[in-house]
Amino acid sequence: MTPKISEAEKEQRRSQIIGAAMEVCKRRGYEAVTMKDIVEETGMSRGWVYLYFSSKEEIFRAWMEENDKRILAQLEQILQEAPSIWMAIEHMFQTQAQAMEEPDDRLGRAIYEYFLGGLDHAERKEYLAQRYVRMQEATEALFEKGKRTGEFSPEVDALSTAKVMLIFFDGLALHIQGVGPALVQPRRQLEMFQESMRLLLGVASYRKGE
Amino acid sequence: MTPKISEAEKEQRRSQIIGAAMEVCKRRGYEAVTMKDIVEETGMSRGWVYLYFSSKEEIFRAWMEENDKRILAQLEQILQEAPSIWMAIEHMFQTQAQAMEEPDDRLGRAIYEYFLGGLDHAERKEYLAQRYVRMQEATEALFEKGKRTGEFSPEVDALSTAKVMLIFFDGLALHIQGVGPALVQPRRQLEMFQESMRLLLGVASYRKGE
Repeated sequence: MTPKISEAEKEQRRSQIIGAAMEVCKRRGYEAVTMKDIVEETGMSRGWVYLYFSSKEEIFRAWMEENDKRILAQLEQILQEAPSIWMAIEHMFQTQAQAMEEPDDRLGRAIYEYFLGGLDHAERKEYLAQRYVRMQEATEALFEKGKRTGEFSPEVDALSTAKVMLIFFDGLALHIQGVGPALVQPRRQLEMFQESMRLLLGVASYRKGE
Repeated sequence: MTPKISEAEKEQRRSQIIGAAMEVCKRRGYEAVTMKDIVEETGMSRGWVYLYFSSKEEIFRAWMEENDKRILAQLEQILQEAPSIWMAIEHMFQTQAQAMEEPDDRLGRAIYEYFLGGLDHAERKEYLAQRYVRMQEATEALFEKGKRTGEFSPEVDALSTAKVMLIFFDGLALHIQGVGPALVQPRRQLEMFQESMRLLLGVASYRKGE
C-alpha cells in the first residue's frame, strides 16, 4: 500500500522529479534520455516516479509549462506595470545576454531537440503550436501597448515584430548550442538586433518628440 | 574483386548515396537514421556503400559541404558581380521566403539535429565552428563592400550584421520545423526583418542622396 503523504509533499516530489530530469537533459539532450536515466537521477524507486509521471514526454512538458508560466507572468507584469515598454524590452535583452554568456547552459539543446521532434508526434505538435501562439500573443500585446501609448510608431505591425523577436532569440540560442558563446558573442548580437528593433518601432523619433 | 569503374561513375555513385541518405533524413531527421537505412534506400549492396563512406556522419558532412559550397559560390558571385548589394540581399530574402513556404522541406530538422549534437562530438564541433566562421565571413564581405561603395552607412558593424542575419535565418527555419509555415508565415517575417536590416544599414537615407 502506498503511504499517505500530504499535498505539499506530493508537490515537492513532483518538483524533485522534474529537477532530476532536467539535470539529465542538460547533460544529454532530450532524445537520448530514458525514463530509466531519470529514475536513477532522482534516487527514488521506479514505482514512485511512475506515480507522478508516465513518460519522459510528460515530465519534459511539465517543466516547459512551468517555465512558460514564469515567462508569461513576466510579460504580463511588464504589460501592466512597466512605465516604458521599450525600457522593459531593453532590460529583457540584457537579461538574455547574461544568461547566454553562461557556457554551461545546456538545456537549450534538449528544448530544441524536443521542438524538432514535434513533426513526428501529433500531440506534441499540437502542444507546441498552442505554446507558440500564447507566447507570440503575449509579446504582441507589449508592442500593441507601446503603440497605444505613443512609445512606438502607430504603423508598427505588432504581431510580426513579436514573431521576429522570438525568431531571433531562438536562432541565437541555437547558434550558441551549436558552436558556443565565444564564437557567437551573444551580447553584441543582441545589442545589434535591439538597435534594429528600435529603428523598426520608431522609438528614437518618438522619444525626440517628448 | 571490385570491378573497375571510371571516375565519372564513381562520382555518380557517390552522389546517389548522398541523395539517398538525404531522402531518409527528410523523413526521419538525423539522429534516428542508421547506415542500414541509408544502404536500403540506395538499393546498392552494403559493401558498395562502405566503399564510399564509412559512416552516416561522413555522408551528412559531404552533403553539408556541397550545399555550403553552393551557398558560398552564390555569395561570392553577388560580391563580384551584383550592381547593388542591397538588391541582391532582397533577392536572397525572396528566395528564402519561397523555399520556406514549401511545406515538405523537412531537411532542416536533420540539419539542426546534427548541429545540436555538435557539443557531444569534438570533431563535429570543430567542423561546425569552421563552417560558421566561413559563412559569416562571406556574409560580412557583402556588408563591407556595401559600406565601401556607399550603399550602406559607414558606421555599420558588418560582422555583427552578418551574424544577426544568419541567426535570423536559422531561427526562422527552426520555427518552421517546429510548428509549420502556416503558423510562422515566413514571408511576412522575412519582410519585416528585411525592413529592420534596411534601417540598420541606412539603405534608404543613402539612396535618397543618389
